[in-house]
Amino acid sequence: MLYTEIPTQRPVTPLLDTIDHPQQLRLLARDQLPQVADELRQFILYAAGQSGGHFGANLGVIELTVALHYCFNTPDDRLIWDVGHQAYPHKALTGRRELLTTIRAKDGLAAFPVRDESIFDTFGVGHSSTAISAGLGMALARRYQQNPCDVVAIVGDGAMTAGMAFEAMNDAVAHNADLMVVLNDNDMSISCSTGGFAKHLAAIWESGQSVHISEQGEAYVQPHPKWSYNSRLHQSATEAADNLFKAIGFDYFGPFDGHNVKELTQVFDALKKRSGPRLIHVYTKKGKGFAPAEAEQIKYHAISKINAKAAPQTAPKYSDVFGQWLCDQAAQDTRLLAITPAMCEGSGMVKFAQQYPERFFDVAIAEQHAVTLAAGMACEGLKPVVAIYSTFLQRGYDQLIHDVALQNLDVTFGIDRAGLVGEDGPTHAGAYDYAFMRTVPNMVIMAPKDENECRQMLHTAYLYPGPAAVRYPRGNGLGVEIQQHMTELEIGRAEIVLQLNETADEQISILAFGSRVAASVEAARSLAQQLDVGVRVVNMRFVKPLDEQILSRLADQTQLFVTVEEHAVMAGAGSAVNEYLAQAQIVKPMLNLGLADNFMHQATHNQMLQQAGLDAQGIVKSIESAWLKFVQSIG
Amino acid sequence: MLYTEIPTQRPVTPLLDTIDHPQQLRLLARDQLPQVADELRQFILYAAGQSGGHFGANLGVIELTVALHYCFNTPDDRLIWDVGHQAYPHKALTGRRELLTTIRAKDGLAAFPVRDESIFDTFGVGHSSTAISAGLGMALARRYQQNPCDVVAIVGDGAMTAGMAFEAMNDAVAHNADLMVVLNDNDMSISCSTGGFAKHLAAIWESGQSVHISEQGEAYVQPHPKWSYNSRLHQSATEAADNLFKAIGFDYFGPFDGHNVKELTQVFDALKKRSGPRLIHVYTKKGKGFAPAEAEQIKYHAISKINAKAAPQTAPKYSDVFGQWLCDQAAQDTRLLAITPAMCEGSGMVKFAQQYPERFFDVAIAEQHAVTLAAGMACEGLKPVVAIYSTFLQRGYDQLIHDVALQNLDVTFGIDRAGLVGEDGPTHAGAYDYAFMRTVPNMVIMAPKDENECRQMLHTAYLYPGPAAVRYPRGNGLGVEIQQHMTELEIGRAEIVLQLNETADEQISILAFGSRVAASVEAARSLAQQLDVGVRVVNMRFVKPLDEQILSRLADQTQLFVTVEEHAVMAGAGSAVNEYLAQAQIVKPMLNLGLADNFMHQATHNQMLQQAGLDAQGIVKSIESAWLKFVQSIG
Repeated sequence: MLYTEIPTQRPVTPLLDTIDHPQQLRLLARDQLPQVADELRQFILYAAGQSGGHFGANLGVIELTVALHYCFNTPDDRLIWDVGHQAYPHKALTGRRELLTTIRAKDGLAAFPVRDESIFDTFGVGHSSTAISAGLGMALARRYQQNPCDVVAIVGDGAMTAGMAFEAMNDAVAHNADLMVVLNDNDMSISCSTGGFAKHLAAIWESGQSVHISEQGEAYVQPHPKWSYNSRLHQSATEAADNLFKAIGFDYFGPFDGHNVKELTQVFDALKKRSGPRLIHVYTKKGKGFAPAEAEQIKYHAISKINAKAAPQTAPKYSDVFGQWLCDQAAQDTRLLAITPAMCEGSGMVKFAQQYPERFFDVAIAEQHAVTLAAGMACEGLKPVVAIYSTFLQRGYDQLIHDVALQNLDVTFGIDRAGLVGEDGPTHAGAYDYAFMRTVPNMVIMAPKDENECRQMLHTAYLYPGPAAVRYPRGNGLGVEIQQHMTELEIGRAEIVLQLNETADEQISILAFGSRVAASVEAARSLAQQLDVGVRVVNMRFVKPLDEQILSRLADQTQLFVTVEEHAVMAGAGSAVNEYLAQAQIVKPMLNLGLADNFMHQATHNQMLQQAGLDAQGIVKSIESAWLKFVQSIG
Repeated sequence: MLYTEIPTQRPVTPLLDTIDHPQQLRLLARDQLPQVADELRQFILYAAGQSGGHFGANLGVIELTVALHYCFNTPDDRLIWDVGHQAYPHKALTGRRELLTTIRAKDGLAAFPVRDESIFDTFGVGHSSTAISAGLGMALARRYQQNPCDVVAIVGDGAMTAGMAFEAMNDAVAHNADLMVVLNDNDMSISCSTGGFAKHLAAIWESGQSVHISEQGEAYVQPHPKWSYNSRLHQSATEAADNLFKAIGFDYFGPFDGHNVKELTQVFDALKKRSGPRLIHVYTKKGKGFAPAEAEQIKYHAISKINAKAAPQTAPKYSDVFGQWLCDQAAQDTRLLAITPAMCEGSGMVKFAQQYPERFFDVAIAEQHAVTLAAGMACEGLKPVVAIYSTFLQRGYDQLIHDVALQNLDVTFGIDRAGLVGEDGPTHAGAYDYAFMRTVPNMVIMAPKDENECRQMLHTAYLYPGPAAVRYPRGNGLGVEIQQHMTELEIGRAEIVLQLNETADEQISILAFGSRVAASVEAARSLAQQLDVGVRVVNMRFVKPLDEQILSRLADQTQLFVTVEEHAVMAGAGSAVNEYLAQAQIVKPMLNLGLADNFMHQATHNQMLQQAGLDAQGIVKSIESAWLKFVQSIG
């Protein structure tokens, strides 16, 4: 069935309703599986409409999920879903069907498989390309324990471009591991797939040849049938007939029609009897079965809740501010090139990619390469800008140190989704970037208080002739006016944004970083009313280099310093302030506010800030408490 | 010529002596190149004998280096040496011949190509597998600038297993970049190459087929000749005839005899006329031309100075302490598995690999995979130990956060080469691990004061049922007795190791971490004599969790806190102490000693510690100065 609307009422799914454990699925006849798949698709359409969240990828793996749970003895056999944004059908078939509408909400199901949520979630995911490594670890462990089971890693074609997938395949062959990799080839990552690997998959496709297996388990080649999607969408093919997976030492089977659930069960049943590393190439369509999503795959990668009252958002997203700055800066300077590891849309670069196609480089999911590619470009006198989410820069950390900072190369980093990220949960939190970047020599690190400052900081970072990063949060700005004219900020210079009760004998100095400036200002107003004390708020702007002058100057007029940041307290920006004060032998009470030393579960961004005590109210409470203790301590 | 001894006198090299710039090489007749190569080999033998350092890899690329500088218009054409420990011949041919004996010494030539050292060093290297990314960046930059040049990345077969090399190849094809990759295939990384990729190279070899190019530039296949090394050394071949490089979209040529300098020049001359991404597969032998090194390639990866008076080292290396602990722990617990990313020898695991081959996993150069593989094994109830250098763990940082710590999995990290590493210089410094690890929830981080504590800490980390790391320095222990019986330390408990002038009115508390405990003790003795003050030294043991009790207890008896660590001051262990004191509202003068915010050039480890002010004398000086300021400040 091809559906055209997302149902707002729970669809009737009599067969699906009988499945609270995959064992119940496995009791069905093979002929009943298409009905299960159809009901599951309707249900996913409904549930995702209720919860919002990842969409197209889930519709694309309905039949695959049914076939896998039908053929393998889950949870004893191990399914590992790479990335995991396609795991809604898996969650629905493993006892979590009626909770699926709560996905991504506070206290609801997680956006991704999580080990604590279900024994069927064998490995927590979120970032891409980890599944083969994890699956290999499981397979080798079970072999060592002399208790083998079937292990299946399900990996998208987009995720295959990340180097660690290749590292894992290389190692699987070294051990002749009993591991199955299902290549879920939909010709897409979130954006269109790109690069030699995508061309290679196109070549396999266009060869018209398919490696099948007989009922006796023998492999044979036959032309693959013309399915409804009978050509690759996005990539021209390479010429070569050579098969990459066979070259690396995997047994290769496919491509198979990933929406033919019965054929899939025959494939898995046959292949699970074989040993060694096997790759099963399955062709699926993102958004399958829902007409609008089939037509616009990027748009329907994720959706909003269908009933959500769209809050009027006048302020632009930070990613859009980045994208507009990128276009404007590029218009001024032909040396600007821009790089994204497969996050063109998420990073706000669509317009730039259209305006400057020859200056736009989507390198596929390849964060390590993205950073070093920029280093290479900078060596030739160009000025590359790397747009990357904070959490994904963790993948390019060594390259940031070894290839960029050590050589003091002129690379600008636009670091998006920094701090808490809400519904995506802890896998995607950008809570560590101040810490891992500021310890690296030569880095300049900024965080804007609002969207206008973001623009000016990006300009400043760009003009700075070495490695410089601007980290900004997920979501929308504050609604301030954005100055089109770009003004370079003085490196390492903070600004006092508020001073209340200036004449009071005792003063609190709140040193606020980035997204927490506004909340700190609000908190300061409240504190100044409640306590008989002066309060000032400094927009620190620079995590590195710190404005040491302002810290020294304020020290004489400050009884309590407070630092506030949307980042781990440990090793964060406040910690940098502590270090400077110690070095300058400024001995003052200090309150470091930021994220506590734990991984926070998903909720809305605001809920998470509240939980972390980083909204205005939480900041007030913490400062009040510290101030009272301070007052007591001095008697 | 096959040499059997390392000359102690500078050999006579009349032709080589005429080459101070590759332009002079390019003026020679092709027939003279074998003589250049022979003289260069003799010279490298001599120079490496004088300086010590990397050896086998350099002998293996003599002919390749001569051919590259002969055929390409360096430095305008770009050569990028991956890893760079094979760049001695390159340095010798590019104006640095007579400085080569100073390599790796303080103020001498760097161990690797460095941009600041020479315009011929187009990209600073040290870590593996960056060259294709950097070269692609250069090639795309030059294309964009409409000023193309030839770009050649020279990459070993070992380095090709790291995912970022694959990411870069994928992207090179996306752009149809004019990039040549020379696959310098010697069947080795530092250890023997392993995995599907190595098997694939073996398959290419054993096919007996070679892709050549005619003088007209046309590719054709012919059987390759039987060279003296006529089979792969270490790996059985895969069955497949498929070519991985062709599959990903590279033009593939070879394998060629990497020691036939004339043929190599013909190959490069022909291939540089072609466009698009090209892979030139060259077969070389590590240690080529020096009989002992050809016979024992792992042993001769690097050598000591030939004239070095071998200092009597009674204390074991930390890596050997790790290796012995690993064997002993494995004997007690069958759940222990050990993983190394291609550093079996360096990490002290040879004995373990022999004793427990089924529990030893060399995953090739693949740090990302190494960490997530461990996570997968831990999911099955095993207790993997990952042995990794601090600087290489930077490559597995995201995996540490996302796959291990977030799931609180039971993985033990033995982190070697932490702190300053001496001759290898800034690329290999392990100066950031406290910072990037301690910000991550669930981590336990220890640093031992000596080799016995290292053993006990590894045992403690192993017993701890979550992610735990022990970071220890390069080189030898202090010579203390190592207790064979393993004793679990209490998590988060420090020890006072010295208390001098206990009854003095004023007290300095030195909180020392890991390798700096001994120097701190020495410094304390000196301080206690010079100043009329009590001095105590705390071996902090745990960077995370800190011993907060001891900090609170000492606060009342301390006028000046000092932290000492072999790690960046920024975000380091001292910074963790600052955070706790602030949180506990303990307001005291604090001196954080550690590495300054810059990359340190190579020297001996001791020279570097001295420069950093982290030897006993430097610690004394810093504390004296801070103490005098403190005394002044209180009037």
